[in-house]
Amino acid sequence: MRLARIAHPDGVAFVAIDGPDGSEQRAREIADHPFGAPTFTGKSWPLADVRLLAPILPSKVLCLGRNFRDHAAELGNPVPTSPILFMKPSTSVIGPNAAIKLPANSARVDYEGELAVVIGKPCRDVKAEDAASVILGYTVGNDVTARDQQKADVQFTRAKSYDSFCPLGPWIETELDPSELRITTELDDVVVQDGSTADMVFSIGEFLEYVSGIMTLLPGDVLLTGTPAGVGPMVAGQSISITVEGIGTLTNPIQAR
Amino acid sequence: MRLARIAHPDGVAFVAIDGPDGSEQRAREIADHPFGAPTFTGKSWPLADVRLLAPILPSKVLCLGRNFRDHAAELGNPVPTSPILFMKPSTSVIGPNAAIKLPANSARVDYEGELAVVIGKPCRDVKAEDAASVILGYTVGNDVTARDQQKADVQFTRAKSYDSFCPLGPWIETELDPSELRITTELDDVVVQDGSTADMVFSIGEFLEYVSGIMTLLPGDVLLTGTPAGVGPMVAGQSISITVEGIGTLTNPIQAR
Repeated sequence: MRLARIAHPDGVAFVAIDGPDGSEQRAREIADHPFGAPTFTGKSWPLADVRLLAPILPSKVLCLGRNFRDHAAELGNPVPTSPILFMKPSTSVIGPNAAIKLPANSARVDYEGELAVVIGKPCRDVKAEDAASVILGYTVGNDVTARDQQKADVQFTRAKSYDSFCPLGPWIETELDPSELRITTELDDVVVQDGSTADMVFSIGEFLEYVSGIMTLLPGDVLLTGTPAGVGPMVAGQSISITVEGIGTLTNPIQAR
Repeated sequence: MRLARIAHPDGVAFVAIDGPDGSEQRAREIADHPFGAPTFTGKSWPLADVRLLAPILPSKVLCLGRNFRDHAAELGNPVPTSPILFMKPSTSVIGPNAAIKLPANSARVDYEGELAVVIGKPCRDVKAEDAASVILGYTVGNDVTARDQQKADVQFTRAKSYDSFCPLGPWIETELDPSELRITTELDDVVVQDGSTADMVFSIGEFLEYVSGIMTLLPGDVLLTGTPAGVGPMVAGQSISITVEGIGTLTNPIQAR
């Protein structure tokens, strides 16, 4: 099932998106929230008539640094032997087609195309082999990073936390094997990243076991699983599109703040 | 005004605490939330009959590292020339008298007594001199840290983010000049930290200007302003009490997880 969150003529709702890609797709309204077995209100809209929002509003976004060997290498870093964990605040989340705003105090803001895992249940101390039991589904994420500030600060917090630095979407795919999915990023029409989730240093299960051994994860929390090689800067006026095979494409325009 | 959050016989509520310290204090129930000009339901309880919870549930907790010269020195670090920013997740927050749980995989978990700033309004790009206009009040915080993991990881995230690693309380004092307040920490009955908010490297106004230049702050968000010298480990069976002058004392027992 494809789960999304939309702005429709009368408000905001979680929806399931039905139908193959194309003009016939409809958004069926979910009562309350999409966790567990969602129930439907009976209302629906043509997908073309509504606006997709970030498919979930996470209480926290946990991220892995340098989780692809080729990306670690391109920035001159060793491949990590233990997870490099950092967080992005909930206020950094935006949805599809919302603008990534470049802060004036950074000279280089990079895209990082990633597979995003959406948690479906409150959980703690999850074993890697049980990961699927607490995962709602998968979406596409962009771990936008002020690269100059990341290098200057040592702590990643500032560089990763600006408002609009965590685009998520277009929707959550609940039926997907995440182990070998192609991730491609296009800056305007140029392919700049082309990797596979098969090349992660720490698997989704290992990441979930690690982070849930530290903190309770809540429904809607998001794990960003790291970016393949090819990161680079974006400038105002460009558009960044990240596609994860089996999910869809997350596109955001770039603007000066 | 002293704002708190309590568990009372019928549920949970925000309250104002009236009366001087002592057995006559009462908790008066606030309708809805404590932001803006709170209104009261007319219900109240003797403070002794209710249980204090964390006075606020922040969407995010922003923290400054090494914000006291003497604390930077005691860990062999230079005094920072720009803020060292990190975050603790909302799931790390606990209230007064709740147990700090020591993770089995850390050999050294430290207390860090701190003044905590509670944000009162959604805000972005706040100038240092306007800080008071967006602050709801001040409480006491303990930036509990797995010191061995902090040193091993470079990124502070894991070491600072375990469940129970952000005690807050006992209440929020809304009328307070935070510029020169004594901070004392007692481990069991031994004073281990004795500092003053006057010795911060970056002032509360500077911290707020810095962080609100990065991200939107929401009502209830918390800024932890750094710890003075004297940090050290806690072990199961001990009790840690932090007192900030003009606010009160935050006490938490220590347990193995």
